[in-house]
Amino acid sequence: MIKTALTIAGSDSGGGAGIQADLKTFQEHGVFGMSALTAVTAQNTLGVQGVYPVEPEAVQEQLSSIGDDFNIGAVKTGMLFDRRRIEVVVSAIHKYQWTNVVVDPVMIAKGGDSLLNETAHQTLMDQLLPVTDVITPNIPEAEALTGLSIKTMSDRKEAAIQLHKAGAKNVVIKGGHDDSTRVVIDLLYDGERFIYFELPRIDSKDTHGTGCTFAASLTSELSLGSSIQDAVKKAKIFVHMAILKASSLGSGHGPTNHGALRAHPKESVQLLEEVKVWEE
Amino acid sequence: MIKTALTIAGSDSGGGAGIQADLKTFQEHGVFGMSALTAVTAQNTLGVQGVYPVEPEAVQEQLSSIGDDFNIGAVKTGMLFDRRRIEVVVSAIHKYQWTNVVVDPVMIAKGGDSLLNETAHQTLMDQLLPVTDVITPNIPEAEALTGLSIKTMSDRKEAAIQLHKAGAKNVVIKGGHDDSTRVVIDLLYDGERFIYFELPRIDSKDTHGTGCTFAASLTSELSLGSSIQDAVKKAKIFVHMAILKASSLGSGHGPTNHGALRAHPKESVQLLEEVKVWEE
Repeated sequence: MIKTALTIAGSDSGGGAGIQADLKTFQEHGVFGMSALTAVTAQNTLGVQGVYPVEPEAVQEQLSSIGDDFNIGAVKTGMLFDRRRIEVVVSAIHKYQWTNVVVDPVMIAKGGDSLLNETAHQTLMDQLLPVTDVITPNIPEAEALTGLSIKTMSDRKEAAIQLHKAGAKNVVIKGGHDDSTRVVIDLLYDGERFIYFELPRIDSKDTHGTGCTFAASLTSELSLGSSIQDAVKKAKIFVHMAILKASSLGSGHGPTNHGALRAHPKESVQLLEEVKVWEE
Repeated sequence: MIKTALTIAGSDSGGGAGIQADLKTFQEHGVFGMSALTAVTAQNTLGVQGVYPVEPEAVQEQLSSIGDDFNIGAVKTGMLFDRRRIEVVVSAIHKYQWTNVVVDPVMIAKGGDSLLNETAHQTLMDQLLPVTDVITPNIPEAEALTGLSIKTMSDRKEAAIQLHKAGAKNVVIKGGHDDSTRVVIDLLYDGERFIYFELPRIDSKDTHGTGCTFAASLTSELSLGSSIQDAVKKAKIFVHMAILKASSLGSGHGPTNHGALRAHPKESVQLLEEVKVWEE
């Protein structure tokens, strides 16, 4: 039986982020993807030209159509837009008892456009985190959610502890925005241990949708039965390959190549050995 | 450089049809997919529970975001909903001089729900067909567009001639709805020759999104540089495999398995030899 995953997020017309990145990534993992749209955006590699929210009732009806008919192996949330849509999502998670819930707290697009109303941060913390299995903020998102200023690894650990206390069973704070080093270190906190995942940094402007792609790969892996630690490791390699083999589409921040891992199996296997993992 | 394709269609929350089927199919062909949504639907294998049209201005803005930033190798249209949205699409095709335009004239969902206002049929014929490289109706759609009653292969040929006269450079009338035979014969008319493609019929209830999937595979093949005839043949095999290896998700008409061709390369190569092709 094929495994399934659901993405609840916005649509990126440019195909590099949002439900498009998620569905492509699920497909690359051999996982059957479904989707509930929270907003339609007109977007390309240069920025977001338009945002058209989908009414909360329509978000709810999509989730009902899915939940009433399908078994869902894992759920990923992306751009949730505002408080009302978050409440609809939380309600569906409760109703259908969905597990393996991955929350990518999308707030700001690569170009700087806001994708989550500020008033919704508290709703996300209060209502969504208690049903979250893994939350995957980058450093600016972790700062926005916790109110902390994150400069050091110690700050990151503090933010992870706060997000875990708020209810997220596991927290991954991604290190991509910390460009002080030649490596990217992602930090996983499961409430007991801090686990670090390190790979070399790739100099690339083609980073549109990296956050969606990482979280979608992680979601796929959970649907396929991976442990959290394995899922984080494999997702890191998936997105690393996707950036490395990007095709520089468009004239701004190009999308990643979601098919890179499959197209380059040898390099991918090599990366599995190269990624440094340690814990404390 | 990676090839690209654009789908202009509705969103199927269940993931088996609409832009979801298209993006998955593009991805399976190694083609980078983009999308402009015309409507959001709440839908599963049992039917369509809700349709939420995207405003024509938002359709236009998505198309502008795409056309202003990306080179598009092929374009597929699916559910266009009504006259105004068709006009926006035609205008973008002219503006950006998009080629390899594949029109899947989606009208009715598998469950019987209408996905194209009847008043829009004429707009599709008058405005979209003149910029169409391939139109891919099934028999009921060909009947609705031409007003003909299609019972025999001779009727099908007459319908193909009419659609070609209306402007479509190539017409594929799919035979899936003609269940009088144990084979499925698809008919291609390029204005000069009638070419037939035959494979055994598969008994399956998992046929949700077959039309989208066929047209999306054909679109991918055109983007990759295949001739029309090769593209039709390969698309027929792609969707045949997708039906054959479907996983019976949901309790109604389940989605096809878009990853089947890649997962079963030997069977797929064998089908390439088995498909009967003849012309007159």
